[in-house]
Amino acid sequence: MSKKKFNVTPYEVQGEVDYSKLIKQFGVSKIDKKLLGRIEKHTGDLHLFLRRGVFFAHRDLNWILDEYEKGNKFFLYTGRASTKGSKVHIGHLMPWIMCKWLQDKFDVEFWFQFPDEEKFLYKDDVTLEDTEKATYEDMLDIIALGFDPKKTNFLIDTKHADLMYPQACRVAKKITFSTIKSSFGFKDSNNIGSIFYTSMQAVPAFLPSIIKGKKMPCLIPLGVDQDTHFRISRDVIPKLGFPKPAIIHSVFLPPLTGMGGKMAASSSQAAILTTDSPKEVENKIKKYAFSGGQDTVEEHRKKGGNPEIDVSFQYLRMFFEPDDEKLEDIRKKYESGEMLTGELKEILIEKINTFLKKHQKKRELAKKQLDNFIFKT
Amino acid sequence: MSKKKFNVTPYEVQGEVDYSKLIKQFGVSKIDKKLLGRIEKHTGDLHLFLRRGVFFAHRDLNWILDEYEKGNKFFLYTGRASTKGSKVHIGHLMPWIMCKWLQDKFDVEFWFQFPDEEKFLYKDDVTLEDTEKATYEDMLDIIALGFDPKKTNFLIDTKHADLMYPQACRVAKKITFSTIKSSFGFKDSNNIGSIFYTSMQAVPAFLPSIIKGKKMPCLIPLGVDQDTHFRISRDVIPKLGFPKPAIIHSVFLPPLTGMGGKMAASSSQAAILTTDSPKEVENKIKKYAFSGGQDTVEEHRKKGGNPEIDVSFQYLRMFFEPDDEKLEDIRKKYESGEMLTGELKEILIEKINTFLKKHQKKRELAKKQLDNFIFKT
Repeated sequence: MSKKKFNVTPYEVQGEVDYSKLIKQFGVSKIDKKLLGRIEKHTGDLHLFLRRGVFFAHRDLNWILDEYEKGNKFFLYTGRASTKGSKVHIGHLMPWIMCKWLQDKFDVEFWFQFPDEEKFLYKDDVTLEDTEKATYEDMLDIIALGFDPKKTNFLIDTKHADLMYPQACRVAKKITFSTIKSSFGFKDSNNIGSIFYTSMQAVPAFLPSIIKGKKMPCLIPLGVDQDTHFRISRDVIPKLGFPKPAIIHSVFLPPLTGMGGKMAASSSQAAILTTDSPKEVENKIKKYAFSGGQDTVEEHRKKGGNPEIDVSFQYLRMFFEPDDEKLEDIRKKYESGEMLTGELKEILIEKINTFLKKHQKKRELAKKQLDNFIFKT
Repeated sequence: MSKKKFNVTPYEVQGEVDYSKLIKQFGVSKIDKKLLGRIEKHTGDLHLFLRRGVFFAHRDLNWILDEYEKGNKFFLYTGRASTKGSKVHIGHLMPWIMCKWLQDKFDVEFWFQFPDEEKFLYKDDVTLEDTEKATYEDMLDIIALGFDPKKTNFLIDTKHADLMYPQACRVAKKITFSTIKSSFGFKDSNNIGSIFYTSMQAVPAFLPSIIKGKKMPCLIPLGVDQDTHFRISRDVIPKLGFPKPAIIHSVFLPPLTGMGGKMAASSSQAAILTTDSPKEVENKIKKYAFSGGQDTVEEHRKKGGNPEIDVSFQYLRMFFEPDDEKLEDIRKKYESGEMLTGELKEILIEKINTFLKKHQKKRELAKKQLDNFIFKT
């Protein structure tokens, strides 16, 4: 499989990403077997996202475990920039499910940022009212994943600005426009809100330490495209007297249409939304899920399918089939030609719809729980 | 008197300012006799700041009066960026005293911004704790001027960020870094907080309209060096659906040491602070107040003094001698040589100390009134 040019920034993910190259390019470390073993010592088992390399890279995860072993618990931080026309899709859920697993296994606090000004600042046609509405919807998806409300705090940039803006100023004072230019590729024509924004994204990485009155390590599970923000803030936060946040990076769940880029909710044919009906899921998978199979049944029986480029198989591997043996069984049958693309798709459709049925029920219940999650001083 | 090069920006005032040139350079309008007459029609009399050209220029003041005459009352807005090592001096009081007079005469609301992040963002050695302490002190001076607490609201950027930051984002979205560069002379090496800041300064010019749920005209009395911020925000605010704020501009009270630049509290020998004791005032005036008199008594009796360059006379004219006849009497006596510099200084010392005695008493009482002035939603 030839690897073409790719580009990964918080504002663009293009091409088929070569994650080994990205590790070098971003200067991050691979999550290797030794590190997985170290995690497993504390957790008893490993989530499929870890076993199967969905979370593939990190910054300072060993330090997080050092501190944990000394009795100094970390807190988790991640976020979601809600916007008009971009509903939560299954790819978004991956870092959040990782957080839920880590919260349970390590018994730690989880801080979730809703930077409801971000997309407003970056997109001409998005209003603050749009992002406020979208933030509400997105909160339901996060709550639906089962976080412990006693250990989970939502921060909304425009609603928690009394807390966050002064801290963002402390961060901003230590970042020049030159840094923003070279990190994000911004120009003089960028608006001054978008230039300031990264300071707000840095804040939840140390705000809990201020609120609790003790310096706590921070672990940020995120999609690797968000790393740029934290490359900058990891330089700044120690200057403010707080520990450098650690990060674990996930690959992107590919869009239905093929292995390049990342799933984007703005392209409805390429994304499975958390609010999709069973019928919509079925139609999308059947119609759009890129197949690694052959053109005819005869040819497929003879040559077999290629699971590496088959989006349905990859969704099972990356998300929906936690049983390693079952997954291997599917792989073998598909590679040998015993299993047809249609059969593979049926397995995935059933798995996704089982997941979404439960998720949508919990998402409905979440509407009454919102108040338990929004941080209050 | 030869006019040298001068420079007026929010971050620098240098040289002897030629206000006629500044009117052209900034594209503002002179407050002329016709406009003064229009004000007087409503106020009955004219404050000395208006009679004597201390407030010398404006933007859209005629429109403010048009609206007022239609029954659409304006609100007043001004501010003060508190910082370490810069206490309030008598020069700072001028726009505030103007506001107090306008509040009384037009019976209007007054909104006062304390941008406690501004100096923090611009000065390496200033912390947010420094500006918080300084803001408290500065509030006392404003309250001491006698504003009506029912019609006066203090906004503190870091304390009212829930209200202000989302609105600042709306402003920021419409300002590019190119504009900031050309308006303030900023460079890529400026920090991203200082680049964003002007958006926060724009907010109180329309926030009251949002809070009250009706579009109210805004009138901003300010020192002319602050005009740059509003040149930008006057372009942006109408795009957000609010009226362009109007402005009246004051000249600078010159430093004790001579007619160039503006009084700066960082140079204690050049400024009369509101907290100075009678003895400190006496010493400063006697020691530093630049004299327009002659070198010897004999020469002074013969040639007389020059009130135009005499700082003591100018302070009387611009601030401390409201009686026009008395002022003219002093001018004549000083010009003729009948009055010596020492005598002129004695008059000023007595006037300032009378003012400060009353001010300091009210400043002490203000400590218990703070809560009545800070805006609450």
